[in-house]
Amino acid sequence: MVVDGLDIFSKKVVAICGGVGGAKLALGLQQLLGPRLVVVVNVGDDFDHLGLRICPDLDTVIYTLARLSDETRGWGRANETWNFMRALRELGGEDWFALGDQDLALHVERTRRLAAGESLTSIIDSIRRRLGIEATILPVTDDVLRTKVETDVGILDFQRYFVEHRCAPRVHSISFEGADRARVGRGVYGALTSAELGAIVICPSNPYLSVDPILAVPELRAALRARRVPAVAVSPIIGGQAVKGPTAKIMSELAIEANSLTIATHYSGLIDGLVIDESDAAEAASLPVVTHVARTLMTDFASRVELARRTVAFATELG
Amino acid sequence: MVVDGLDIFSKKVVAICGGVGGAKLALGLQQLLGPRLVVVVNVGDDFDHLGLRICPDLDTVIYTLARLSDETRGWGRANETWNFMRALRELGGEDWFALGDQDLALHVERTRRLAAGESLTSIIDSIRRRLGIEATILPVTDDVLRTKVETDVGILDFQRYFVEHRCAPRVHSISFEGADRARVGRGVYGALTSAELGAIVICPSNPYLSVDPILAVPELRAALRARRVPAVAVSPIIGGQAVKGPTAKIMSELAIEANSLTIATHYSGLIDGLVIDESDAAEAASLPVVTHVARTLMTDFASRVELARRTVAFATELG
Repeated sequence: MVVDGLDIFSKKVVAICGGVGGAKLALGLQQLLGPRLVVVVNVGDDFDHLGLRICPDLDTVIYTLARLSDETRGWGRANETWNFMRALRELGGEDWFALGDQDLALHVERTRRLAAGESLTSIIDSIRRRLGIEATILPVTDDVLRTKVETDVGILDFQRYFVEHRCAPRVHSISFEGADRARVGRGVYGALTSAELGAIVICPSNPYLSVDPILAVPELRAALRARRVPAVAVSPIIGGQAVKGPTAKIMSELAIEANSLTIATHYSGLIDGLVIDESDAAEAASLPVVTHVARTLMTDFASRVELARRTVAFATELG
Repeated sequence: MVVDGLDIFSKKVVAICGGVGGAKLALGLQQLLGPRLVVVVNVGDDFDHLGLRICPDLDTVIYTLARLSDETRGWGRANETWNFMRALRELGGEDWFALGDQDLALHVERTRRLAAGESLTSIIDSIRRRLGIEATILPVTDDVLRTKVETDVGILDFQRYFVEHRCAPRVHSISFEGADRARVGRGVYGALTSAELGAIVICPSNPYLSVDPILAVPELRAALRARRVPAVAVSPIIGGQAVKGPTAKIMSELAIEANSLTIATHYSGLIDGLVIDESDAAEAASLPVVTHVARTLMTDFASRVELARRTVAFATELG
C-alpha cells in the first residue's frame, strides 16, 4: 500500500471509540471518509435511569457526527432546554443525571424500541440514518456489558461513579460485567474483516474506561489481533497528562503513569503504530511501537479533520 | 342539615370527576373546601404510549388544582415547551400524542414508580402533595380499567379515538374493559362512607366517556347507591348542547338526545339533585329530579368558585 492519501481514503476505516474525545476524531474521520467510516462504540457506560436506557457514548457519537452536539458543555445537544428536569425536580424525581428536553427523545424512543424487541444495533442504525449521519455507528455488542468501578465506597455503575459521585471515590479497579459472554453486534465482525478495510483506528478515548470495555469483548479482541490491515491508536495523553480530568485521577489511583509508554504498552499486540502529541515528542524514540507525532488537541473542526487525515495517512505508511 | 353554607362547607365533599370540565368545578370546590375535598378521578382514558403511562384525566385534575394548567389550550401545562416532541419527530418517533417537556416529567416519574411496584394511588398522592394541592386526588381504581370505543373502523382505545383519530370514526358503543373486576383504590370507599362526608358531586364531565367508567366500578356504584348524604350532578349540557364538541357528536351517534332529561335519567338512582344551566331552565319542571338552575359555563376562576358554592349549597338543601 503506497503512502497515498487518495488510496487509503478510498478504503474503509473502523474507528474504536468511547465518548467525547473519541467522537471528535470520529467526526474528523467522517469528514474524510463519509460512508466508508464504521465507528464501533463502547456500551459499558449504558445504564437504566428513570426507566429509560441511556447510552452516553453512543449518544455522544451520534450527536457529534450529526453536528448536533454542544461543543461548550462537552456533552448533550446544542440549544438544549431543561424544562423536563425542572418539572421532574418539582415532583421530587431523581435529578442527578441531567436529561435535556431534546436529548430525552432519543432515550424514550430507544427504550420503546428495545422493549418492542428491536436490537440496539438496529435502533442506532435507523436513528443515525434519520439524522443524516454518513458513518455507520455500531454498538460493540447488543448484549449486556456494564463497566463497574470498584471504589472505596463500593462497586458503582460507571455513570453513578462519574456523574452522581463526580468521580470523588477512590478507584481500586474497573471491570466489565458481561464482557466475556458478550458477542459482537451485527456488522462489527464483518467490518473488521472486510476486504475493503484499509485501517483500524483506536480513538483518543480513555483506554481504561472507554476503550477497554470494547476490547474486552472476546470476538472483537480476536479480530483485532488477527487483523490484516494496520491498526493505530491516537494517544489521549498530552504533555504527560490526560486531557480530561477524571482520566488523570483514575490513572493515578490505579498507579498508572500518564505517559505515551503506558498507552503503547496498554495496546501492545493490538496496534502497529501510535500517534502521540507534539508535546510528548521526546518520548517517541523510546517507545516499543512506531510513532507519529501530531497536534492531538482537537479544539475545532479543522483540527479534528487534520488529526484524522494524519492518523489515516500514518496507518497507510504502516501497511 | 340546615341550609347554611358554613355548615356544609365544614364537611367533606367527594367529587366524581373526568377531565377538563370536571376539573374546573373541582378547582372551585377546592377553593371552598381546601383539604376537605376528595376528587375521585376517571382512569379509563389511561394508556401506555412510548413506554410511558399517561393518565389524561388525573393529569388534568392535578394541573388544574395546582394552578399549572394551560387555560387557553385546555389541556397540559401552562408555559409548556415542545422540544422533546420536535426531537422525537426528527427521530421518526410516534408523534400523534403531544407531550410537553414539563408534562413529560410526570409521565416518566409515574412510569418509573409504577414499574418499581408503587400503586397509582400512592404515586398520585405524593405528587399532589409535592405540588401543594390541598384536595385529595384518588384514581377510582389501581386496577386496569380501559375505555374502549367501538367504531366503524374497529375497537379503539379511547385516546387513539380521541386524539389520533380526532373523534372522526362513528361510535357504535363504549365499554370499560376490566371495570367489573376492578376494586376501588385505597381511600375511595372510605371517603364515600366517611361520617365527615357532607355531599357527593358528579362534576360536569362527559357522562358516557368520563363519569361512566368511574360508575362502572362495582364497589363505587354500590357505595353511591347506598349513600347517606345528598348526591348532586352538574349537567354538562348547556342550551341543549354539550359544551365540548366530541360529547355532542358521540351523543348524536349513540342516538342520545343532548338535554337535561337525558342526564337526569342517566344518573337515575345515583343522584338526589341536578344542577342545570340557566339556558335550560325551561326543562326544570319536567325533570324527574330536584333541580337547581345556575350559570354552569365556567369561563374564569370566579365562575368556578361560584358554581361550586351553588352546587354544594344545593346539595345541603337536599340533606
